[in-house]
Amino acid sequence: MPQILTRNQQHGFLYEQVVAQVNQMIARNTLCVGDRLPSLRKMSKQLNVSIATVMQAYVQLEGQGLVETRPQSGFYIKSRPVAEPSLPKPTRPLPLPRRIQFGDDISSLFSLANVPGVIPLGVANPAHELLPSKGLTRALKKVASLRPVETMSYCYPPGDFGLRRQIAYRSMERGVNLGPDDFIITTGATEALSISLQAVARPGDAIAVESPTYFCLLQIIEHLGMMAVEISTDPDSGLCVDSLAQALDTVDIKAVISVANFNNPTGALIPDTNKKAILDILAKKQIPLIEDDIFGDLHFSQTRPHTFKAFDAEGLVLTCSSFSKTIAPGYRVGWVSPGRYFEPVLQLKQLVSSATASIPQLTIAEFLRSGLYERHLMRLRRAYREQLEQLRLAVAESFPKGTRLTRPQGGFVLWVQLPRGVDAMDLHADALKQHISVTPGTIFSATGKYRNFIRLCAGSPWDEKMADGVVRLGQLAQALTS
Amino acid sequence: MPQILTRNQQHGFLYEQVVAQVNQMIARNTLCVGDRLPSLRKMSKQLNVSIATVMQAYVQLEGQGLVETRPQSGFYIKSRPVAEPSLPKPTRPLPLPRRIQFGDDISSLFSLANVPGVIPLGVANPAHELLPSKGLTRALKKVASLRPVETMSYCYPPGDFGLRRQIAYRSMERGVNLGPDDFIITTGATEALSISLQAVARPGDAIAVESPTYFCLLQIIEHLGMMAVEISTDPDSGLCVDSLAQALDTVDIKAVISVANFNNPTGALIPDTNKKAILDILAKKQIPLIEDDIFGDLHFSQTRPHTFKAFDAEGLVLTCSSFSKTIAPGYRVGWVSPGRYFEPVLQLKQLVSSATASIPQLTIAEFLRSGLYERHLMRLRRAYREQLEQLRLAVAESFPKGTRLTRPQGGFVLWVQLPRGVDAMDLHADALKQHISVTPGTIFSATGKYRNFIRLCAGSPWDEKMADGVVRLGQLAQALTS
Repeated sequence: MPQILTRNQQHGFLYEQVVAQVNQMIARNTLCVGDRLPSLRKMSKQLNVSIATVMQAYVQLEGQGLVETRPQSGFYIKSRPVAEPSLPKPTRPLPLPRRIQFGDDISSLFSLANVPGVIPLGVANPAHELLPSKGLTRALKKVASLRPVETMSYCYPPGDFGLRRQIAYRSMERGVNLGPDDFIITTGATEALSISLQAVARPGDAIAVESPTYFCLLQIIEHLGMMAVEISTDPDSGLCVDSLAQALDTVDIKAVISVANFNNPTGALIPDTNKKAILDILAKKQIPLIEDDIFGDLHFSQTRPHTFKAFDAEGLVLTCSSFSKTIAPGYRVGWVSPGRYFEPVLQLKQLVSSATASIPQLTIAEFLRSGLYERHLMRLRRAYREQLEQLRLAVAESFPKGTRLTRPQGGFVLWVQLPRGVDAMDLHADALKQHISVTPGTIFSATGKYRNFIRLCAGSPWDEKMADGVVRLGQLAQALTS
Repeated sequence: MPQILTRNQQHGFLYEQVVAQVNQMIARNTLCVGDRLPSLRKMSKQLNVSIATVMQAYVQLEGQGLVETRPQSGFYIKSRPVAEPSLPKPTRPLPLPRRIQFGDDISSLFSLANVPGVIPLGVANPAHELLPSKGLTRALKKVASLRPVETMSYCYPPGDFGLRRQIAYRSMERGVNLGPDDFIITTGATEALSISLQAVARPGDAIAVESPTYFCLLQIIEHLGMMAVEISTDPDSGLCVDSLAQALDTVDIKAVISVANFNNPTGALIPDTNKKAILDILAKKQIPLIEDDIFGDLHFSQTRPHTFKAFDAEGLVLTCSSFSKTIAPGYRVGWVSPGRYFEPVLQLKQLVSSATASIPQLTIAEFLRSGLYERHLMRLRRAYREQLEQLRLAVAESFPKGTRLTRPQGGFVLWVQLPRGVDAMDLHADALKQHISVTPGTIFSATGKYRNFIRLCAGSPWDEKMADGVVRLGQLAQALTS
């Protein structure tokens, strides 16, 4: 039975339609800061509503601070705050070995974050709309049709040769010339990082990490019974060379782990000169470095940043990565280029999960071979850059005074320092009640630092729902400042 | 340029054709023991060769002991030795905690075993001819077409609900009534076993294992820094209840691992009464049991053997399995039903490889849902039973006097005890030179036992090449007895 609306309901409905239309135009960048909104008459015609309804909607948008009226002229998209938000200060942790004790805290934090309907500001995954669905499905069907025996058979470590060849082929971009036999395929970067760490250190050993750093790295260190030594970082240039050198002089550090290219959570990029300086120090002491280059392909500048491996004359660097942020998280295809640790890493790979599934390997190899990856990457980088910029602007506008933000040069995560006294765990809990996920800062530290920090992710297309989520987050944060 | 054969070459070629034809008919069971060979005239007509050539070929086959002449009657396939080969004796290891030190010995043993062209008696994989290629490819294409977003997205632990439902649906056959939420999907059984062990024990802890047992279990124990306590087994009924009870009284054992249904390497099946008795003892001491049920679906009798889980009133059993021996090794889809250890196993799964690849999960779920699995299993069980029987007969005929064999009631591996003094590592090395792979017995023990044992696998269809491989293996073993 068709529903009959009362006059009032009808009015409310039409009026919301106007608001939605404007929000969509903003989200799609059809309307930018300073642009004039469509005239009352034009909008009224376009949506087939009365001029009074449009007027009322525009006035409401003005009340929300999205729109301003200019006398004798009309309604305009209000200018955003021009001041670039301040950066968080460089970090200064004590470089002492610490046993990590997350237990099951982290998994419980994320237990509700992946539920459909939750605004995904807390989950560093690419939205499926951004993934190369068509090309990948075509590659998958081709593999299924032409290579049925290989899809069913074990693809023994080091993994599919064709895939390793495609990865090696792209190693020049990472600043290094490697062949297929320099790579081992893994079940995602998680496995690559875990077996790399096991190849170079033992339970009880001290591992230097950036502070803040990706919590999964801390979880792996915890799981392996190792200790973490937190090293100072700069919000722009990442790992601090002097602090690392000092820590290496005072603590018996067995390995260094770094997310050099677009640190998770800060988005910092270690400049090439610093990468080289760090490796010079490590080479003298013959200490291995494990790098997680999972965001390296997602640079916003013209050229891809080099990996540590580019400056590695001694085979001390183990570079780990995966296609989870660029092609498809569900494929679980990662890799490691372990330098002089090739043999122990290969053995560990065989031991922990024997082979990696064949179909995902063959399909990604086919997709890379097709040449579609580079075109896809160009689109993806643009999307992430725009989404991240939208997120930064929205946070700068909506969050309490005194909030500081990083300015990532790649990837899609943003590190937000809230005013002192705001507990990010409270914000996380309050936000989840409103179906918004955020990642509290403490899990990026081995010692419970960053209590007033959160990580926000821009992996999903920017839309009204995301914008609304950020506004509400800002209100929740504001409420916690009092 | 067509090659012109000399008269002698031509004769040799034709004559080999006859020998090949007879061997093929034997391999395909067209000719069985006691059957008359085609008459000289018939074979001569069929292959278009002279009667003299056929005669010469038949005489050669007689010389090889494959054929016998019966006066006035013709050539017959010679009867095989009627005596059932003896079983290996029950094992009697000392039940003391031992640190395992394989290092990279095992991976180097297998490094040449998977090379194409090698006769695969050493690798416990199903041949691709036996796998449900058509049905699986159909399922894969269906998933690719209808569920593109899911194929690309993370399928977070505990894994795809549809797959868990299909596995749960089949749990009645394993003697137990479980639901989808009792299962966690893993990257193969290897990962399931490794995280199960990590959930119930810590480095330094003593773990009871069958002697002999699957070497991968020993490698996992080694990798986790735990100790193995070898327990006596019977070649038919597996783990000895009294020996286990005694070991539990004298050693502080933290967990038991068992391949109850068709032990690898012996093929032994622990009777249900023994399973129940073992669990009664473990329940009193609240000690968990991890079972590897990877061969359970491959029973030769009418009904599937129960799992330990069927007798587990207290949630102490962690049942692990995979579809690597039945559907496709390359899919790397396994599972664990961890009883009361669900939460810690789930956390470990998230930690070691986060999700398992989505496509293999979705495809196997689709294949199971289609109902093709049960029909496929019936064919597969018949094939494995026949292949294993052919292998047993061939070994019984070709191997040196004093060789003992197990009589597996399921699975596809055979445990061969060579005469005392024959070193299986030598046999392994000699065989590999002739492109035949075997698995030496010592790696099935934590303490270097079973030096004069080998494991042979019947995962590939029985053909001339396999038969020839076994004959040559027997000759090599014979040479090592002197």
